[in-house]
Amino acid sequence: MNKQSNGIMANTGNPFGKVTVIGGGVIGAGWASRMANNGIEVDVYDPNPNAAIGVNKFLTYGRNALKSLTLAPLQAIAAVRFHTTLAEAVKDSDWIIEAVPEDLDLKLKVYAQIEASAKSTAVIASSTSGFKPSDLQAKMKHPERLLVTHPFNPVYLIPLVELVAGDKTDPKLIERAKLAFPYLGMFPLQVRREIEAFIADRFLEAVWREALWLIKDDIATTGEIDDAIRMGFGLRWAQMGLFETYRIAGGEAGMRHFIGQFGPCMSLPWTKLMDVPDLDQNLIDKIANQSDDQAAGRSIEDLIHTRDRNVAAILQALKNKEYGAGLVLSAYETQLYDRAKTGDSKEVMTDIYAAKPILSLQMQVPDDWTDYNNHMNESRYLQAFSDASDGFMRMIGIDATYVQQGGSYFTVETHICHLNEARAGEEITVKTQLIAAEGKKIHLIHLLHNQAGDLLASGEHLLLHVSLKTRSATLPAEHIAKSLAKILAAHSSLPRPSQLGRAIGKK
Amino acid sequence: MNKQSNGIMANTGNPFGKVTVIGGGVIGAGWASRMANNGIEVDVYDPNPNAAIGVNKFLTYGRNALKSLTLAPLQAIAAVRFHTTLAEAVKDSDWIIEAVPEDLDLKLKVYAQIEASAKSTAVIASSTSGFKPSDLQAKMKHPERLLVTHPFNPVYLIPLVELVAGDKTDPKLIERAKLAFPYLGMFPLQVRREIEAFIADRFLEAVWREALWLIKDDIATTGEIDDAIRMGFGLRWAQMGLFETYRIAGGEAGMRHFIGQFGPCMSLPWTKLMDVPDLDQNLIDKIANQSDDQAAGRSIEDLIHTRDRNVAAILQALKNKEYGAGLVLSAYETQLYDRAKTGDSKEVMTDIYAAKPILSLQMQVPDDWTDYNNHMNESRYLQAFSDASDGFMRMIGIDATYVQQGGSYFTVETHICHLNEARAGEEITVKTQLIAAEGKKIHLIHLLHNQAGDLLASGEHLLLHVSLKTRSATLPAEHIAKSLAKILAAHSSLPRPSQLGRAIGKK
Repeated sequence: MNKQSNGIMANTGNPFGKVTVIGGGVIGAGWASRMANNGIEVDVYDPNPNAAIGVNKFLTYGRNALKSLTLAPLQAIAAVRFHTTLAEAVKDSDWIIEAVPEDLDLKLKVYAQIEASAKSTAVIASSTSGFKPSDLQAKMKHPERLLVTHPFNPVYLIPLVELVAGDKTDPKLIERAKLAFPYLGMFPLQVRREIEAFIADRFLEAVWREALWLIKDDIATTGEIDDAIRMGFGLRWAQMGLFETYRIAGGEAGMRHFIGQFGPCMSLPWTKLMDVPDLDQNLIDKIANQSDDQAAGRSIEDLIHTRDRNVAAILQALKNKEYGAGLVLSAYETQLYDRAKTGDSKEVMTDIYAAKPILSLQMQVPDDWTDYNNHMNESRYLQAFSDASDGFMRMIGIDATYVQQGGSYFTVETHICHLNEARAGEEITVKTQLIAAEGKKIHLIHLLHNQAGDLLASGEHLLLHVSLKTRSATLPAEHIAKSLAKILAAHSSLPRPSQLGRAIGKK
Repeated sequence: MNKQSNGIMANTGNPFGKVTVIGGGVIGAGWASRMANNGIEVDVYDPNPNAAIGVNKFLTYGRNALKSLTLAPLQAIAAVRFHTTLAEAVKDSDWIIEAVPEDLDLKLKVYAQIEASAKSTAVIASSTSGFKPSDLQAKMKHPERLLVTHPFNPVYLIPLVELVAGDKTDPKLIERAKLAFPYLGMFPLQVRREIEAFIADRFLEAVWREALWLIKDDIATTGEIDDAIRMGFGLRWAQMGLFETYRIAGGEAGMRHFIGQFGPCMSLPWTKLMDVPDLDQNLIDKIANQSDDQAAGRSIEDLIHTRDRNVAAILQALKNKEYGAGLVLSAYETQLYDRAKTGDSKEVMTDIYAAKPILSLQMQVPDDWTDYNNHMNESRYLQAFSDASDGFMRMIGIDATYVQQGGSYFTVETHICHLNEARAGEEITVKTQLIAAEGKKIHLIHLLHNQAGDLLASGEHLLLHVSLKTRSATLPAEHIAKSLAKILAAHSSLPRPSQLGRAIGKK
């Protein structure tokens, strides 16, 4: 999906009508959750009397996923009703989702049952991941109303749904589906011609088969295979996929150059799977032209910047979640701090006991710190000050070990003067002046400057030392108190910033 | 990589020694950037006199990537020197990275040249993506010092490096490499036995071949293939890879059940690639046991929560970058706001002209809003207040259209009292009371409560209406001023919160 033509349509009314889900397994429950969490009532039929337990769990999973995805107002969860017969579940339905096991005979039987009880205009949307819709339509009375809508687990969270028409599918139905799925926050991808397994599952199967060989031949374990993916190309694929990534690899010489390099490798016996299309000039041109269309004028340098920003953002997200490649980043960060301490880094820490404000943060404004006003969002000022406070804390000895032992400082009061704007990419620094340090309290002021030396903001803070066990105020360890006293003595001669002690709306 | 055993070692001194890179293309330049940005000097040889331009660009790309990845203190970029002969580039080197094109004869020739000029103890680390190290060692005098260190583009950002030993590689060299690469923020994955293309590229080739078929047969274009990946399984693979994802799909019944379901599909003619390993009980057991080891006791429900949080975080990251699946999320959010406006949502907006504080934000604390103190980070209080201010703005008519026409409010002063802690997952609300609205100024106070009704914080703000063109203060549009006046009249009778008008360090 290019930004230029994303095919997403605004739509504010439920475009599905009354929805029924046949089959309450992982896929059916995922559909029910996606629908109900968008305010659409769902009737469910599954011969297994325990299906309701799973579906209800998925309603909660989907709700939690949506809440962690967006702060936008969610629609209330709609009712999900369970039925003991298929006939009852489908009788008034407008949109019937089939999510029964991948067994062609079973699916044909279910369609016959649906056609016996449902309105003849009700859509039948199959979740099959492999069968061609024409095969599913073979014995139907009204085959024009069947299409494949192939989702991906977890259905309540992954955007993709592949739309596939059979020989007899009403073309208007595909158009309707393309307009409808964005209502659920989904991305409908129309498959141009029906083939078994469509697009995504072709790749999944190719990879799966290769993985079986690797395990069978003791080249790698399941865990090592997962690492080979998520520490590497998985990070590229989550944002650009295959061809846009390779377009960059081709460099300024472009896609033709890349295929020229990579293509010949395919004649080498490098996989167990040998039937390879003839990579003639025709196919090379086709790929290169499609890739040009996709790039829509973006240069390789543009694409590099986009990819790097995306991958960095994904790595940061995974660091916050303490998972996968995010753990590698955390470990690396810890090392960087260690290297700075041992002087192995040339960007060493300032002498904190000099009679001058302490450099507590130096960074470039990340572009996701900016907002619709095209400048650093106000909340990022406090994030910079919070990071500066953390930097100051580390310098006085409040490190991971100290926190682990149960001591820390909490901020109890903050006053920010936003004086000037900051743009993405600007170098900013924070310098910290200690105003008071007495018993449990620290009073300090941060001044945030850009590279030109303009004062962008001040952040005045009152912090309290606490026990992380009791969550109440306690005295800091003696070495912390001593370090603070030494800094305070050095800072006592400094002029006081005019932003100190202000109250809003008072002179 | 499980959290349980991540194999990452702390290491504060340069473990590579003097580094040389032979070949300054995309991979060689990536290596030079990774090394130099970690303070390690690099000597480069490339017969192309323009290679320096590309390498220098990559130094900057790598620096920018690191700066956007971490706020930790970076080491100063080390010197990168370009040489006109290979002999000169390698003469004092300890670690020689070979990154020349994938041509076996060329590589063998380069190794002979290296051996003629370098120390006999210098490591030769090949970046080959396909050749077996034993084949690379074939004609070497000191083959024990060659290993494959296969990186992924962009080398300065993607963590994975596959380590592969040949028949004659010194086993101690592999151990040394495993300890060394974390210094660069990389994740070394040792491949158990050498095969052509190792692990990751086996998958990349399988997918690439399948993609060629899809394009050739007009099933999909390059752009559609990319969407099929990044809107779907790419989001799963970036965090869990293949097997952990499928473990979840198998549900409580586990991996054996999943293979039972998915395995038989492979006998169907669903891809062009047909040589499939025999999925006998032996192989099924092997996979299921490895998957059990990998899960290390985490239940399917644990894995579901982990996956969902990871994928949501990746989607949010991509939303911030306005790319791929992130655009689907933005479009969906816009819809959710629209539905709330048209009353299609049941969680409708409050009557803003009633004589009570306005509900401006209602949300669950996302788990990445918490910090090492195990509570909502101080900066997230301002993020909540900033989002609440945005909510208030939308209600008085400052919407996307108004901003596009050049009007907006900027916060110029903020005072926060942090009164109580918030934990991940807690429901929080912000209610907003207007204190003054006169000309260009708005003075308001937000009160942040948890579900139990405890006041967690107050946020007092002074905002100024600005022209986004001149970036200076202007009067708001008349309908905005009228709306504000009406709210102010309604709020004039409300009691004033005690947190109003405070200054830090004053009574």
